This record gives sequence, structure tokens and C-alpha cells, in this order.
Amino acid sequence: MSDEAFVTLVASDNYVLGGLTLAYSLRETNTQRKLVCLVTHKVSQTIRDRLAAAFDEVVAVSELNSNDSVNLDLLCRPELGITFTKLFIWKLTQYKKTVFLDADTLVLKNVDELFDREEFSAAPDVGWPDCFNSGVFVCVPNLDTFHELVELSENTGSFDGGDQGLLNEYFCDWSTKDIHKHLPFVFNLNANATYFYAPAYKRYGKDAKIVHFIGAAKPWMHARDANGVLHADNAEHLVEHLDLWWACHDRHVQDINLPQSFYPEEYVPSASAGRQQFSTQWYGGVASHSSSHSTQPPASGFAAIEAKLNEAMGGKREYKQASPTTGAQNSGGKVPAAGLSEELESKVVLKKKPEESA
Amino acid sequence: MSDEAFVTLVASDNYVLGGLTLAYSLRETNTQRKLVCLVTHKVSQTIRDRLAAAFDEVVAVSELNSNDSVNLDLLCRPELGITFTKLFIWKLTQYKKTVFLDADTLVLKNVDELFDREEFSAAPDVGWPDCFNSGVFVCVPNLDTFHELVELSENTGSFDGGDQGLLNEYFCDWSTKDIHKHLPFVFNLNANATYFYAPAYKRYGKDAKIVHFIGAAKPWMHARDANGVLHADNAEHLVEHLDLWWACHDRHVQDINLPQSFYPEEYVPSASAGRQQFSTQWYGGVASHSSSHSTQPPASGFAAIEAKLNEAMGGKREYKQASPTTGAQNSGGKVPAAGLSEELESKVVLKKKPEESA
Repeated sequence: MSDEAFVTLVASDNYVLGGLTLAYSLRETNTQRKLVCLVTHKVSQTIRDRLAAAFDEVVAVSELNSNDSVNLDLLCRPELGITFTKLFIWKLTQYKKTVFLDADTLVLKNVDELFDREEFSAAPDVGWPDCFNSGVFVCVPNLDTFHELVELSENTGSFDGGDQGLLNEYFCDWSTKDIHKHLPFVFNLNANATYFYAPAYKRYGKDAKIVHFIGAAKPWMHARDANGVLHADNAEHLVEHLDLWWACHDRHVQDINLPQSFYPEEYVPSASAGRQQFSTQWYGGVASHSSSHSTQPPASGFAAIEAKLNEAMGGKREYKQASPTTGAQNSGGKVPAAGLSEELESKVVLKKKPEESA
Repeated sequence: MSDEAFVTLVASDNYVLGGLTLAYSLRETNTQRKLVCLVTHKVSQTIRDRLAAAFDEVVAVSELNSNDSVNLDLLCRPELGITFTKLFIWKLTQYKKTVFLDADTLVLKNVDELFDREEFSAAPDVGWPDCFNSGVFVCVPNLDTFHELVELSENTGSFDGGDQGLLNEYFCDWSTKDIHKHLPFVFNLNANATYFYAPAYKRYGKDAKIVHFIGAAKPWMHARDANGVLHADNAEHLVEHLDLWWACHDRHVQDINLPQSFYPEEYVPSASAGRQQFSTQWYGGVASHSSSHSTQPPASGFAAIEAKLNEAMGGKREYKQASPTTGAQNSGGKVPAAGLSEELESKVVLKKKPEESA
């Protein structure tokens, strides 16, 4: 399968941690495909060398930028103009077929079956589901397609200022022509789905294969404390997926010893640190619970989210006992593969609500 | 076309205003199909008589309730158990084909083309887009289907406690089998789409045919003041669609003079009333603007939303001049058809932010 590859884009140092963790999450699924990373001039040679240790191929490309500040401001994501660089995947003609994965995705299970799909296959976007989300897609490298996309970007532009608006304009029959080009949502699971439609997540979330951390705050931007404990203020519904991402990072990326500047500042715990507090708001209303860290360490991934859902529903608690917390950010402690373990060590601690700080 | 019908459900007095306004919004599109309203024992004979003036047929059915408080609590919509009553549409075998519309939908353009679709056709749900939203769907009445659905509800139940979870369980190949059974999103436009993915709404929103007021707060629950001015606190992104709903209500429903108990309490304006204030928060960030009512009366529907988007984007203002505000809640003033007019009188005034009240 040397003529098929998973491809991602690291357009700046801001996405290096994402790209590396994505690569190792793919390795953990024993993929039989090549791993390719596109990089721009903004990524230093030192970092390219680190990426080369994780990917089979690191390909330098020039930066493509929509420079569409108007639509990007409307999207409130001014940084997304450079995602046009993603178009270079169509120039990788040494591969018969490629699967693009955004650097803010995490692979939980083997997804080599994606190469059975045709161009252009993608999953629906939750914001406007007649559009596909361009964080995960199947395509066939072809220079004509590349030039047509570049021409479209120059003549028509992108309705959202990023690659997604442009690609939806080009592959405009995606929503109406061929159901087989609709990837199941679990191949590009918006990490916020736990919030938008909790019962559906409870029903189908166990089949999640690729989780996509959509939004401005990426996993590597959420601070951890000196004990490696994640503090995900205002992202409580993401904590279990964030924990899976950090667990994969800790297994493979932290040993690379990237400069500390690549990481958020260490979180300084408040007086409430060490006590566990969940507060989960579901779409359409609120359901919340709290539990004592000393008595209710959470399980990982779907198991813990399901347990929290059950608890929010008044059902029985199904947390599995986790091992004691040890993992400082740079410790080498190994934990089981992301998405496969019920015993994954918990590093999730949310700050107590103010009214509970007394 | 007497053998095809649009069908809605008024399961309690809480949805009478929705059902009536939906019916008249359909009438305004000159539909050639019958209009049918399902009612339960909770709807009085007096109200049934009012509904009979708007619909071709009012059908009394018994209430079906999932009584699934566990999943409904997770969905934070305990009232949705009775949506199982919707299943009675499959017993309307006097019709060869039916299109169900939730009573919290508003039809903006003629949608008779929906009858060209087969069972089971529906649009994706934004929360989990491999599920369809059951607020708008095409089905073929059939007693066997009805009994199979009731049996499924008794044996398996609904994963969300409402009809949507049950119907997605029954029509479980919707997401994978036939693209022609995927209704375009504009036939069941989540009113929150203006918030979730603003650029896509700007690109495709002008094609909206049916808007769906998903969520606990329905249009008829948003208070208006003595001048008929809508006050949509915490729902600024909905105001233009809410205004279309109230405009249709004012054209047809207010003359019915339903008891005042069907309406929210009159909003008592603050010192800031009379000055127009928009504050629109987009998914992923914030973009807001304010404009003086005296100089910038908004246009209706998509035109005004597009104008607000353009303004949020720093583009030129494209508001069209509206006629002076006159419409008290019970005035009989006529205005053009919802969704068809650029000149629709504006009744949208949002309260000033506290810091601007000085």
C-alpha cells in the first residue's frame, strides 16, 4: 500500500504538537499506509527533523493564503486563511489515493478502510450539514484538480475564507449525488458532539474512529499543572477526548522534548486542585454533576463520557477504578493505546465552581 | 392533489399558536395539498374549532408518550415524550403521501415539491448529522408501519426519549442508502444555523424554504411590548426569523383572538426601548454591531440577516427602508407574505446593553 497515504498539514509551529500526536495515533492503529506531512517555510528545519521521525515523508510546500479577512472575521477564525495550503495534497501524484486529516484530529481506531472510498468523500459539517467538513476527506492527487482549485480560489474565492468553503464550492454536488461519498460522522466526530446531541453521542459515540477538535482552542492549548493534570475550563464537555489526546502525546511526543514554548504555561492549581469537578451543559439545557476525585476517578474516552451521561441521567455510576495519578507532563509513564482502554489513567481535574471554594 | 397532505401535531394548548401560524404560512405559499392537524384530548373543542378554520382536517388521536424521563432529561426536554403521538400520521391512510411539519416550523416558500420524494425523506440533524431531524419528513401512511413503530417503541424505545430517536432507529439506513432521501437542509433549516456557521448561512440561507425553531423557547414564548415589538433576549441570532413568524401570526392568527393566556406576558420596555440594538454572537467568536432604529430600520428575513452579516464584516449597509412601526399585537395591519418581502415592517427591537443605558 505504498501508493496510498494519510496526509496532514503543519502550516506553522502552532500545529506541530497536533501533527506529531496525530501521526502517532495513526501508528498505534497499525495502519498499512504511508504518513505524509506537508510543511511550509514557517516550520524550521529542526522541527521538520522531528516531524520526519514520525512521518514517512515530510513535504515542503509554499503557503497558500486566502487573505480573505472579511469572511474569516465572520467565521471568527482569522488564522484559517493559510488552510488553502491544504490544496497541495492534489500535487502528491506519487500516491494513487490520499486521505487528508487535519492536524487537530486524533485517530482512535484503524481507518484504512477510508481508502476504499472514492474522491471526494467527506463527512457532514454540523454547522451546515449540506456542507462537508474538510478536516477529513478522501481524494485522488491530480494536477488538473489542483490547478482548477487554485483558479477557483482566485476567481470565486471561499465563502468562509478557508479551505472548507472553497472545497464545498468545487465539490458542490457532494450533498446531492452519491451517498457513498458521505463518510459516517464517526470518521470526523466533532468533539463538541457530546454537547450538541448527547443522546445520539450515547447511542453512537462508541463507534468513534476519528475525533476532530474543531474550534480555536486546540488540545495543546489547554494548560496542565505540574502533575500533568488537564485544566479544561469552559470545555468540560471535551475533557475525555482531550485526555485521550494528551495520553497519546505523553506516550510518544513528550520524549521528543520540544521546546517548552510549544506548550501552554503550566497551570497553577487553585485551593480546589485535586478535587474533581464536572459541569456539563448539554445542547438545549443543562445537566450537571460533581464527584469527588478521591472516590470517583473517571474512566477514559467513551466509557467515562457514557458514565457521566448515565450519572446525569440518574443512572448507576459505572466509573472504573483508575490507577493513581503520576503522569507529569514530561514523565515517561506509559498508558494503554488511546481509545482502546477502560483503564486509562485520569489526568482530568476541573476547577471547583466559586460557590464551592469555601 | 386531495390524496396528499401536509400534517402537523398540536398535542397541547402550548402548540396551538405554532400550528395555526404554520397552517397560514403554508396557505400563503398557495399549496395545492390538504392541511391536516392531529390533536389530542388536551386540546379543547373550542380550540379545535379555531384550528378547523385554518386546516382542512382536524384529526383527534390518542396521546402516545415515551414516558422516558431518563433520556428526555439527558436531552433536557422532558416535554418531548408526547411527540410519539406524531406516529399517528402513518394511520392517515386516506392520503397516499404525507409531509409532516413540526408545529414550531414556518414555511417561507412553496414546498409542494416535497411530495415528489419517497418515504422516508428527511434533512440531517445538526447535532449528529448521520441522524435526520424529524421536524420535517415525507412518509406514506401505512398501518403496518404504524404498528411496527409502536412495537419498536415498546420493545426498544427511543435513544433520545422522543420521536426523533425512535424514527432514526426504525429508518436506520437513512444515512447510508439513498441520497435522494436526504432533504436539502433548507427544507428544515435550524433557526440557529445563523449562529453555528454564519458564512454558510450567508452563502445558502437565501434558499431557505422552511425554518425550524428548534429548542425549548418557541417564537410564541418571546415577549413583545404594547407596540408589538419583539424582545428576544439571549436569542439575538434568531430575531429575523422570529420576526417572520410573528409577522405571519399578525397577518392571520391575531384576528382569531385566542385567550391572552396563549401569549407571553406583555414586555414592559426599559428606558432604552425604542432604540434598536443588535448583538450577534457567531459560533467560534463574537461579531456585533448596533444601529439607531431611527436611521437603520432592518429589512426582513434573509435580507436583514445578510445586511447584518455584511455590517459585521465591515461591508456596506444594505438595509431597505421599512414602513413606520404600527403593529400592536392585536392590530389588524396587513404586511406582505413572510419570506417573500424585502419591505416587511420591522417589529424587532432588542434592549440596549446595560453599559449603554446611561
